[in-house]
Amino acid sequence: MRIDVLTLFPELFPGPLGESITGRAAERNLVELGAVNIRDFALDARGTVDEKPYGGGPGMLMMAEPVVSAIESVRKEGSLVILTSPRGRVFNQQLAQELAQKEHLVIVTGHYEGVDERAIELAVDMEISLGDFVLTSGILPAMTIADAVIRLLPGVLGDDASSVDESHSGYLLEYPQYTRPTEFRGLRVPEVLMSGDHGRIASFRQREREKLTRARRPDMWENFMSQTEKEV
Amino acid sequence: MRIDVLTLFPELFPGPLGESITGRAAERNLVELGAVNIRDFALDARGTVDEKPYGGGPGMLMMAEPVVSAIESVRKEGSLVILTSPRGRVFNQQLAQELAQKEHLVIVTGHYEGVDERAIELAVDMEISLGDFVLTSGILPAMTIADAVIRLLPGVLGDDASSVDESHSGYLLEYPQYTRPTEFRGLRVPEVLMSGDHGRIASFRQREREKLTRARRPDMWENFMSQTEKEV
Repeated sequence: MRIDVLTLFPELFPGPLGESITGRAAERNLVELGAVNIRDFALDARGTVDEKPYGGGPGMLMMAEPVVSAIESVRKEGSLVILTSPRGRVFNQQLAQELAQKEHLVIVTGHYEGVDERAIELAVDMEISLGDFVLTSGILPAMTIADAVIRLLPGVLGDDASSVDESHSGYLLEYPQYTRPTEFRGLRVPEVLMSGDHGRIASFRQREREKLTRARRPDMWENFMSQTEKEV
Repeated sequence: MRIDVLTLFPELFPGPLGESITGRAAERNLVELGAVNIRDFALDARGTVDEKPYGGGPGMLMMAEPVVSAIESVRKEGSLVILTSPRGRVFNQQLAQELAQKEHLVIVTGHYEGVDERAIELAVDMEISLGDFVLTSGILPAMTIADAVIRLLPGVLGDDASSVDESHSGYLLEYPQYTRPTEFRGLRVPEVLMSGDHGRIASFRQREREKLTRARRPDMWENFMSQTEKEV
């Protein structure tokens, strides 16, 4: 897979994506990362890419033409063009899995108050929102989407179990975990985890996952229960 | 406000937070940003901070002691200690507003498969999840939380209207926006926006917000409607 990020701050990439699991995935050519400066497609020599919105309102808007031209400079057959936008489909693990099937993601990061609607109409396939909060720009959402997707590409996670046995893949929150030492400031590791009895450990963990999910995320618990009913 | 991020990759900070609105906020001392290397609190000279989990399972776990020691190195009265975790409260604009009231945020970024539960019990006030997806680490969530919070601090946004008149503050998605030129590739700016009639513009935009929200985010629309009923 290739991921191109179109942004006004290309120097911030790969940033965190250059480290750890995602950085090693790029080194091993499991993913290619590119960053394109939208300002290179400005209409004037000063690199202007933003203008005041028609009809008034605070702040500046990204003009349609530089955005569309930047997209067209990298788009191929099989590309999916994404705009990070608070109006988009809310990002989740299922969407990450869908995106991981694509050959080429082009992620346009919104800046200022947003992007001229015509650029979206003409050149964007999907708007994605990271969640219901307001950020300075789409840079962090673009990095976050890329991170979640890269982890799912074949060969990226050394231990394949690691990507399956995690929160949200199984629709339940993760169980509490403990490591050495057995006692820390008076708190001991639950005995069952040191018992070596795999059956008891598995049911302890399943109970903890259910308890946590019910208490903290009733929405997730309801989904899980309706899923389970369907399977029965 | 001061924000300290506790991480295994302190060199990635401030990264995107050093640019644009958040960067200028730091330059103007409206926020102080710090990054602490959890590895500096390792128990051995090699800087070991992770161990296999008791009871088996894939991957490694952050040990309790280096995490708790790192927290204690920066925590003061009035600090709120946050752990980025898929099990946490889901981040949204309301939570960003709550956090913006604090004097000092300490954000611990999870790495590997998570953190020894006892560190959470002993030293973490709140777990926050960015959303229902799995990431390499808590670095991008920590940056995202910080970005959303910094925008809300007094004096950070030049034009105060900008932080109010945005998606999610008003519980409706943003209306479509347009800027110059009036025609681009055959698509024209809606006439009403060029009419200069502020009343018509305002009602056009409100209708567009309602239409978009109903179509794309029925969950948000329901919240908005029940809010509106309460106010009536």
